[in-house]
Amino acid sequence: MADGNRIVQAEGGVTAAAGFTAGAVAAGVRKKDRLDVALVLSETPALAAGVFTRNRVKAHCVLDGRAKVRGGGPLRGVLVNSGCANACTGPEGMADLRTVIRGLAAATGTSARALLMASTGVIGERLPAYRIVNALPALAGALSREGHADAARAIMTTDTVPKEFALTVETARGVITVGGMAKGAGMINPSMATMLSFLTTDALIGDHAAWLALLREAVEGSFNRVDADGDTSTNDMVVALAGGRSGIDPFALCREEFAQAVRGVCDRLARMIVRDTEGATKVFTVAVLGARSGREAERAARTVAESLLVKTAIHGQDPNWGRILAALGRSGARFHPDRVAISLNGLPLVLEGRRNPLVSEESARAALLPDEVLVEAHLNAGSSSARIHTADLTADYIRINASYRS
Amino acid sequence: MADGNRIVQAEGGVTAAAGFTAGAVAAGVRKKDRLDVALVLSETPALAAGVFTRNRVKAHCVLDGRAKVRGGGPLRGVLVNSGCANACTGPEGMADLRTVIRGLAAATGTSARALLMASTGVIGERLPAYRIVNALPALAGALSREGHADAARAIMTTDTVPKEFALTVETARGVITVGGMAKGAGMINPSMATMLSFLTTDALIGDHAAWLALLREAVEGSFNRVDADGDTSTNDMVVALAGGRSGIDPFALCREEFAQAVRGVCDRLARMIVRDTEGATKVFTVAVLGARSGREAERAARTVAESLLVKTAIHGQDPNWGRILAALGRSGARFHPDRVAISLNGLPLVLEGRRNPLVSEESARAALLPDEVLVEAHLNAGSSSARIHTADLTADYIRINASYRS
Repeated sequence: MADGNRIVQAEGGVTAAAGFTAGAVAAGVRKKDRLDVALVLSETPALAAGVFTRNRVKAHCVLDGRAKVRGGGPLRGVLVNSGCANACTGPEGMADLRTVIRGLAAATGTSARALLMASTGVIGERLPAYRIVNALPALAGALSREGHADAARAIMTTDTVPKEFALTVETARGVITVGGMAKGAGMINPSMATMLSFLTTDALIGDHAAWLALLREAVEGSFNRVDADGDTSTNDMVVALAGGRSGIDPFALCREEFAQAVRGVCDRLARMIVRDTEGATKVFTVAVLGARSGREAERAARTVAESLLVKTAIHGQDPNWGRILAALGRSGARFHPDRVAISLNGLPLVLEGRRNPLVSEESARAALLPDEVLVEAHLNAGSSSARIHTADLTADYIRINASYRS
Repeated sequence: MADGNRIVQAEGGVTAAAGFTAGAVAAGVRKKDRLDVALVLSETPALAAGVFTRNRVKAHCVLDGRAKVRGGGPLRGVLVNSGCANACTGPEGMADLRTVIRGLAAATGTSARALLMASTGVIGERLPAYRIVNALPALAGALSREGHADAARAIMTTDTVPKEFALTVETARGVITVGGMAKGAGMINPSMATMLSFLTTDALIGDHAAWLALLREAVEGSFNRVDADGDTSTNDMVVALAGGRSGIDPFALCREEFAQAVRGVCDRLARMIVRDTEGATKVFTVAVLGARSGREAERAARTVAESLLVKTAIHGQDPNWGRILAALGRSGARFHPDRVAISLNGLPLVLEGRRNPLVSEESARAALLPDEVLVEAHLNAGSSSARIHTADLTADYIRINASYRS
């Protein structure tokens, strides 16, 4: 790295960066006595960048939020509720969102235009707007630098653990911190990966286009490379706020290290999401190498990662490589079956499209014992590659998703 | 129907048509004392038509069979083994296939060129060719008109019930019969639907192109409309033999009724396959109406049918229509979310993209109680429609596929 700038892990999740506070309350959105509304507040107007779901069916918070971050905001706060997606709820749903935003503006002394809302939960049910509004004064009073943990917990749905992470870039002029939190678990997929994630930084950024491009690149390499069940939600968003309190403009001083820190936070949060896929017992990465194009590499990797037969074989620690080869074969990627090599955690199980006779069944099974599995498929058809991170498919996934609303 | 030709159900599966015999033996391909090799023999050279997997990775039997039915054969017999796919086994795999075919030619007194082989089972393992060859004399001796039931049982893998069906077209000149058998269960999917299916008819057909076109149309509307888990096998094939023993050329006398009979047999076998999807407790049909094109309608229907979240909701009898709408939204079909209507078994649950307030949660749940569910989504964006038949996703699917090879 230039100038000896260092990147180190930091404490504090979404409030690790100077100038941000967070908190959460139990507003009773869906269940009683459960933290279900979180707020992240910036003490300064923060330059915002956002990436939103590509699903044609978009929740009200996506429509409203996308408009607010266009051009960079600026934003002062992000309110997040779990328990209700506020999607497919018609004009009343947008009115509900505006009711909450107005209440939040009053409770925090900010402008409604500087406040963004995100929702996650069941689609099609009305948002209990007044229950949330009634809880906002308590929420505003609960804001603190320590509130990051409560906030990360409040945005969980079927997540089993809160997800937060932060990195600091140490420069000769001082430090810049990037922190964030995320929720995942179901509907983790292609396109705009998934879920909700909120990043904060005390970097002083003036160029919205550069900030958005940097975020997009980080999201593409992280959230858009994880895939739990192939479903994409109506509510997905990643929103990043740059509050400026460090006084350091990373684009002038340490662009590369800052980009690494943003990527690092996104990547860690994305991996936490895969690790916490509903019911998962193993995470695995599908790496396709030697494809004819990046697009074919990605399609091939996604097809293998989404194959139910591959997911269940990994779950059963069954080195059933024929399912991997069959998934590659239906992916649309162009290759010659007799040239494919497949390895499991480095063990060269398949060479030239056939079982490697030097690898015993026992050692092939042993390669699948670890909690993390790397499936590498070399198509030997070109020079492009892609990776997708995913998880196995278990009976618990069925249990969780067959009874989600009960 | 013209001329009062009638179509009625017939007994006898793959030997229902005059001129065909079938039988099966336990050759010990993978397990002992289990019927695992079936033979269907035509007493006359039969004009063949075939549709094969579109997977880029093709089993040896697909490569060999495709070449043999090109131009119509003619074929005398089809040998099918379960327990081993003979795919991804290199040049030795093709030699194994030829060894078996030569043995079959000797045992039945026919030409190797007139014999087709089909395999299903684990990918990547060598075919025990000599074990099969040793069993062929017994198999040839076991052939009979009653052998259809044994044959249908021998081709099963994780299927729980044998699948056979037959229809007869009654004309003024006599009857034509179309019968068939199939196996399915896993890897049932798009592209070339699935599985193995063998049809026989005593129709006298001289025009191979017409016969192939008729089969393709029937497959497109049946096997290619069922989808269990989105996976396509390396071994899929549908092969139809027209032996001619009825002396009636359907293309001259009763083309439409004959086509209906072929479609009817394919459709019934395809539905049996969906019903027998690994671990399934419910079958459901996704019908997308009002799409802008047939292609968009099909993509939308497939995306809903393949969504793990939809499959698990149907399993849990949870009328979680938001998951259906979200799947439509990521399918790539163009529509306005506010115009979508969704009904479950005729119950209008969603109107104009929102929950119909006149439908109670109780009645919505009740609509999902039957073993068969019709999910209809009207996009109100055009005039094209498509249907996909599929099944729910259960913990038993995971159990079966996590331990398939054990």
